[in-house]
Amino acid sequence: MLDFGFLGILWLMLQSRLFTKVARNFPKDEEAINAKLLTRAGFVEKVSAGVYSFLPLGLRVMRKIETIIREEMNALGGMEILMPALHPKENWETTGRWKTFDVLYKIKSREGKEFALGPTHEEIVVPLVAKFVNSYKDLPVYLYQIQDKFRDELRAKSGLLRGREFLMKDLYSFHTSEGDLDSFYEKMKKVYTKLFSRAGLKTRIVKSSGGTFSKYSHEFQVLTPVGEDAVFYCEKCDFAENKEIAEVKEGDKCPNCAGKIRVSQGIEVGNIFKLGTKFSKDFELLYKDEKGKENHISIGCYGIGLSRLMGAIVEIFHDEQGIIWPETVAPFAAHLIELGEGKSKKLYHDLQKAGIDVLYDDRNISHGEKLTEADLIGIPLRLVQSEKTGAKIEVKRRDEKDSKLMTVSQVIKLLQPTTYNLQTIT
Amino acid sequence: MLDFGFLGILWLMLQSRLFTKVARNFPKDEEAINAKLLTRAGFVEKVSAGVYSFLPLGLRVMRKIETIIREEMNALGGMEILMPALHPKENWETTGRWKTFDVLYKIKSREGKEFALGPTHEEIVVPLVAKFVNSYKDLPVYLYQIQDKFRDELRAKSGLLRGREFLMKDLYSFHTSEGDLDSFYEKMKKVYTKLFSRAGLKTRIVKSSGGTFSKYSHEFQVLTPVGEDAVFYCEKCDFAENKEIAEVKEGDKCPNCAGKIRVSQGIEVGNIFKLGTKFSKDFELLYKDEKGKENHISIGCYGIGLSRLMGAIVEIFHDEQGIIWPETVAPFAAHLIELGEGKSKKLYHDLQKAGIDVLYDDRNISHGEKLTEADLIGIPLRLVQSEKTGAKIEVKRRDEKDSKLMTVSQVIKLLQPTTYNLQTIT
Repeated sequence: MLDFGFLGILWLMLQSRLFTKVARNFPKDEEAINAKLLTRAGFVEKVSAGVYSFLPLGLRVMRKIETIIREEMNALGGMEILMPALHPKENWETTGRWKTFDVLYKIKSREGKEFALGPTHEEIVVPLVAKFVNSYKDLPVYLYQIQDKFRDELRAKSGLLRGREFLMKDLYSFHTSEGDLDSFYEKMKKVYTKLFSRAGLKTRIVKSSGGTFSKYSHEFQVLTPVGEDAVFYCEKCDFAENKEIAEVKEGDKCPNCAGKIRVSQGIEVGNIFKLGTKFSKDFELLYKDEKGKENHISIGCYGIGLSRLMGAIVEIFHDEQGIIWPETVAPFAAHLIELGEGKSKKLYHDLQKAGIDVLYDDRNISHGEKLTEADLIGIPLRLVQSEKTGAKIEVKRRDEKDSKLMTVSQVIKLLQPTTYNLQTIT
Repeated sequence: MLDFGFLGILWLMLQSRLFTKVARNFPKDEEAINAKLLTRAGFVEKVSAGVYSFLPLGLRVMRKIETIIREEMNALGGMEILMPALHPKENWETTGRWKTFDVLYKIKSREGKEFALGPTHEEIVVPLVAKFVNSYKDLPVYLYQIQDKFRDELRAKSGLLRGREFLMKDLYSFHTSEGDLDSFYEKMKKVYTKLFSRAGLKTRIVKSSGGTFSKYSHEFQVLTPVGEDAVFYCEKCDFAENKEIAEVKEGDKCPNCAGKIRVSQGIEVGNIFKLGTKFSKDFELLYKDEKGKENHISIGCYGIGLSRLMGAIVEIFHDEQGIIWPETVAPFAAHLIELGEGKSKKLYHDLQKAGIDVLYDDRNISHGEKLTEADLIGIPLRLVQSEKTGAKIEVKRRDEKDSKLMTVSQVIKLLQPTTYNLQTIT
């Protein structure tokens, strides 16, 4: 093992120190591909149905997803906060949801005080905004958090796709008018599409039920046979409706462009809602307009389940051999595999120096095992050094069959970290 | 207001966009200084006793604290994971703590499944390690997380010092022998002392009750009249004992050095425990030694309450005018206050370009209000531009009375971000 002295952070980059191990077999108690692969490769560990621990590799993926989300939310003018999971019962009674919200976990303290475990945060964020916002000059405001949510789901069989506890990004927007909410809502559609695309996923914006607050909401669906939702969509244009509300069926003509309507299952990775003034009426969230008149604030909410997104990525990007991470969310940029003890020490040092995130398989196990495990873990670029490669490195993309021989400087150039260029969405 | 185009992240740096506002008065429902100041200045907002939301300024402080903790834990060889808050009842029955752990929140799902809300994570981390560790070659392992904890405290009147829900860093160490645990435990004492000192706090290592697991544990106490604990300590050497177990009283001679024993209240900002083999026996956490013989793994645990640490910092660093953040955890490095509209636009741009974290008070309110609010918020360095300062900038440290006039390049040099130099603790 290498000695990196004080820079203990590098320990994690050594596979011999990784603590988790790739399992020989898939877990027996998982049905969904995402949970099977992520568990076997050591990204997550199930604690109870719908409740997972994120292990070092899994947490690295989660942090990459968090960073993409944070960058996009900040670029929109979102301000990050952190609200608690313990919500006083009174807040949920004020909105009438204490009795009607079916997946609400309820808890009672020793002293008899009742709380809900937050499945969403309108009941907390609206009174918070009421404290600080008084005037049209204070609006709009966009607040978001990346925080642990709790939902008492009856079934939790889809691995990371349906959690009872899961990390979620929820943003709440506050506006002087429905018109301003509408235009922010449209902007968010573009931002979400871009954000999911940065994480490697092509999404369809699917019109769906608005629940009790508004006529419609929109879901961001990744079309795939394994999804829980059914989506009717047009082959040609962007028309798409959730089965629950769809007024078309398979084979119909698209009401927008006369293209053909198709049906697919989908995984919902995000949703956006116009809540209107429902919650601002409940909590008397008012602002004074230019004439000093008091009006209710219009609210929108915008969610993304981070662990579900991670699960969806695995559902889409895998093959018989294992996961194939998109570069933007991969736990490491490259997987350096030495075939022959200590052979890749120098290359590892060189890559570290160049600022490249590399997992170094320095273990003394069989070559076959190393390559099989690397495919399962799914880091996008594999670097192999062995007797055969000489002074060069065998470079293979996880999603391609063929490999190339490259020099060290070619590899470094290939892996040079690039900064994502945030562009305005207008 | 300035237009920063696509770089929305900079919005937060403008005080006009900060969403929170400094309140005219202290909150009526808080007793502790930390909660009074942090609430009034807009860092946190109480949701229920012991349950807080962290607002943009408060979250920035929390992230600074997180970074210090992460750097020190990684440097030790710690590997970060993220475990859930929902803990199956069975795990807590296995350790016998379902009935005996007094602050345990319990919850039942619709289907009748019972969970504890994690107040600590031995019940989750030990079975996790049991899955991956088999041999002495896999040890030691140090796993940590920064995660939300829940405790059903009877009294929660100390603001952020005693939370019912709070962020905590908990590290668990796993060893082949008590001897190895002992030496890591001693190392952790040094790391904790250094970590708290980086956050501005001088701590005493105080011997205290080991609970049911071992004879003693150690607390890291900040001595201050407002603490909840009583500590007997030696004026001369590092002898210190918690009142609960102390065999000395005030005025006694120190059993180590014959110095004088004094008493003080203290705030416990961290604690470290040797758990021995209690939990490895409960969960059959075994390893095979060099001879193939199975032995129980020795475990230590090491906690730091992040929100409590933030509260403790405020208890120590404030004056009549407000908070005085240590530089390492301050929400911003500097507070730029323009007296005269638009006067500091250019300086703000220059500081941004130099990579300096600056909060820019671009609001059109009275000069007096600006300066009063800046003192309350407590950013370590105040930069004022006004008619009087001419081409120069009036620079004042929050903890000093006098100000100096400096040029832009002098200010930039003064504020140049430095990278903390992690040193090995051996």
